[in-house]
Amino acid sequence: MLRFRARPPLIALLASMASMAPDRTAGANAPPAETVTPSSLQSDALSSRHAFDFVQSLCDTVGPRLAGSPGDKAAVGWAVRTMQGMGLANVHAEPVKVTHWERGDAQAEILGGSPRRMLVAALGGSVATPPGGITAGVVEAANVKELEGLGADAVRGKIVFLDPVMRRTRDGSGYGEAVASRSTGARVAQTKGALAVLLRSVGTDHDRVVHTGAKSKDEREIPAAAISVPDAEMLHRVLEQDGATRVHLTLTPRSLPDADSADVVGEVTGRDRPTEIVLVGAHLDSWDPGTGAIDDGAGVGIALETVRLMAALTPHPRRTVRVVLFANEEHGLEGAKTYASKHAGEAGSIVVATEADSGGDAVYKVRWRGDPATHDRFEALARALAPLGVDRDDTEGGPGADVTPLLGLGVPILELRQDASRYFDYHHTANDTLDKIDPPTLARAAAAFATAVWTAAEMDGDFGRVPEGQRKTRW
Amino acid sequence: MLRFRARPPLIALLASMASMAPDRTAGANAPPAETVTPSSLQSDALSSRHAFDFVQSLCDTVGPRLAGSPGDKAAVGWAVRTMQGMGLANVHAEPVKVTHWERGDAQAEILGGSPRRMLVAALGGSVATPPGGITAGVVEAANVKELEGLGADAVRGKIVFLDPVMRRTRDGSGYGEAVASRSTGARVAQTKGALAVLLRSVGTDHDRVVHTGAKSKDEREIPAAAISVPDAEMLHRVLEQDGATRVHLTLTPRSLPDADSADVVGEVTGRDRPTEIVLVGAHLDSWDPGTGAIDDGAGVGIALETVRLMAALTPHPRRTVRVVLFANEEHGLEGAKTYASKHAGEAGSIVVATEADSGGDAVYKVRWRGDPATHDRFEALARALAPLGVDRDDTEGGPGADVTPLLGLGVPILELRQDASRYFDYHHTANDTLDKIDPPTLARAAAAFATAVWTAAEMDGDFGRVPEGQRKTRW
Repeated sequence: MLRFRARPPLIALLASMASMAPDRTAGANAPPAETVTPSSLQSDALSSRHAFDFVQSLCDTVGPRLAGSPGDKAAVGWAVRTMQGMGLANVHAEPVKVTHWERGDAQAEILGGSPRRMLVAALGGSVATPPGGITAGVVEAANVKELEGLGADAVRGKIVFLDPVMRRTRDGSGYGEAVASRSTGARVAQTKGALAVLLRSVGTDHDRVVHTGAKSKDEREIPAAAISVPDAEMLHRVLEQDGATRVHLTLTPRSLPDADSADVVGEVTGRDRPTEIVLVGAHLDSWDPGTGAIDDGAGVGIALETVRLMAALTPHPRRTVRVVLFANEEHGLEGAKTYASKHAGEAGSIVVATEADSGGDAVYKVRWRGDPATHDRFEALARALAPLGVDRDDTEGGPGADVTPLLGLGVPILELRQDASRYFDYHHTANDTLDKIDPPTLARAAAAFATAVWTAAEMDGDFGRVPEGQRKTRW
Repeated sequence: MLRFRARPPLIALLASMASMAPDRTAGANAPPAETVTPSSLQSDALSSRHAFDFVQSLCDTVGPRLAGSPGDKAAVGWAVRTMQGMGLANVHAEPVKVTHWERGDAQAEILGGSPRRMLVAALGGSVATPPGGITAGVVEAANVKELEGLGADAVRGKIVFLDPVMRRTRDGSGYGEAVASRSTGARVAQTKGALAVLLRSVGTDHDRVVHTGAKSKDEREIPAAAISVPDAEMLHRVLEQDGATRVHLTLTPRSLPDADSADVVGEVTGRDRPTEIVLVGAHLDSWDPGTGAIDDGAGVGIALETVRLMAALTPHPRRTVRVVLFANEEHGLEGAKTYASKHAGEAGSIVVATEADSGGDAVYKVRWRGDPATHDRFEALARALAPLGVDRDDTEGGPGADVTPLLGLGVPILELRQDASRYFDYHHTANDTLDKIDPPTLARAAAAFATAVWTAAEMDGDFGRVPEGQRKTRW
């Protein structure tokens, strides 16, 4: 019988990790430094399965890792052990206090006929409903902007149903449009006297799974939850038939005191300029419904594979390559904020920073932010990426969320934009599992990050500092 | 902003139902009988949205309808009201006692590290675990056949994990292969001393949703549940790493005394041979995780649309066309068994029976079982279907489950085989929702059923009786 599943050799991964320690005596199999080229590096990267194996190990042995949860703590241990097993230098965990919120249970039902339960999940940070739940009529708005236009009389005492339809785009811009309703919907609804918010899941799929994610932290909170896209479509149709339809909603999340987590750091020491740092990041935490395979296990795999490839070069690249796996990107960004705050003094030594946090699909575009006077160096870096199908884009690059605080300190950033066409089918849902990643495609993404990092670590000059006026992002 | 969702006019459906009562005075808009042709019928059917509107009304106002549940009772009321609204003759509900089983809660977790919960659902009819659940080691087998080959020593005291990989096929044959593990896995496991069974969901998708379905009723029961395909793949990988991995499983289903349900029947009275019946069926019940849109809301829509089209003809077809919406196909088949038992005396008057129970996609093949001497009539019927892209297949036709007992009485059956390529991505899961049905494609399926039913209701001769030796199915 045909068996379609992959049976990847985790044992082989662990065995290979033991042999990953860089061989500092240039052995027969280690290429001499002068033979390393983007082409040889890309060849090694494309034929490697290690990026996928890292993700598999994280997802299968740790699983979901919401900030403050047992999985979050287990992930820190996993990352330290993995980096040590790879033979990285300076492996350590830097303590971070993180937001600690527990999901609890969630139930939602359309009343007035036979029971029609909706699949529902609290948004990150939501408060609980009263123990017996909330039963109320529903006022629907296509999105938070439409909600802003409604009078308080239409909203007061009701459950607000926000129904934004997300566009599928390669660059993920559809997410930016739709997610505003998740971020600020509850705040706006509360000011108009709503009892709670139900949100159409922010995603491009039609699966009966629910997209979670963070909401804004507000002075006066009301319960906020997402329902699956098929349920949102049903609720919309039912309301169209009977605008007086009522819904019952029960949520039991709770917020706890901040918890202990950590950023996990490791390095490949530069052979020539060890105090100059090329930083590649990803985030170690995940939302809880899935196993965080594409968000951000894939990024963890890409970042670790990047440093694994650098460590395998003999001798090492000129500059130090540092990997940082940040704590709690999803629900507070404390890992990134703590890191930038603690390392502000050495920000001048960070030549460039990049982050992988867009899933496991291929890189198709590179953008940049640095001293505009160094643009020729960005062009040279982009040329090295061209064989991987990566186009140079000279518009202003955006940082991953975790490198945003470093950008604020003037650190140049590289944006290696991955194809996000499929990403929002799974992102922040129970469907974010290992099977959504194609190992060769992930290897191709890792090849692009490794090429960019290696080029930046080898180049003669640097990217200077980002000018003061360009250190903020639009979000 | 583009809004991709359908906004079908349910109010328009109800309004049109009121006008569906056949106009028995041949009005200006009613075609005279002699002008009805397969072509005109198909044109009407293909341009109609009613089949979809029926499914939408059932899913949105009733929702899931597991035998014995409040939704099941509501569905019976819905069906009677809908048929009455269509102006059908002889509308009534025929009482049926049905299996009554409640799902309860289900939890499964891989032990030994940070918490890795699996998405799990009890198989229909499963017994509960002890209140504290079962914690045990796991023995994996690719399918029930492989399990049969294992010694009791390997199985005793363990949770059996059956991991059948289902093939995607147009004719659904991949389901037949894989579902054996669901039907009889628990029985085989119990005889070898297993504590419980976990089954890879029988489906062709990679969504993190769980496929439920019936299991065999056994003398000595052990708890049996399915896990999602991504979870099955994870469990497989984890066991590959550590064969001693243990799993915790808690199920709280319960069986209750048989409940009251009903087959719901309506007719379009034949103009010429009213006592001869062409029967078109579907089943009204559904599994509970989804809203039963493709299984078998789509069949309900096809069957009702077929009789709606027949009722709209003036005058009516020669023979009576009867629609039967059967109770509890999924978990006992009592609706079909009761119907055949109660109507055994008139089985000789049922010219032919057909059932729609394969989702909302198009019919691509027609098969048949009847008196072989009447094969020319089957050929004529198949010719009428050819313009819809339906091929004639002279191999022995299979009945839908609900018409199987009628076949046992010698009633000829027509098998209008629908494309099942997508069906098992959603079937028996939470993903079985209205958005999985494309209205024009459903109309095309209904056009095929209407063409076949009309041809059978108009033809001069009949299909005789099915010979004694051909009245049984292989399943």
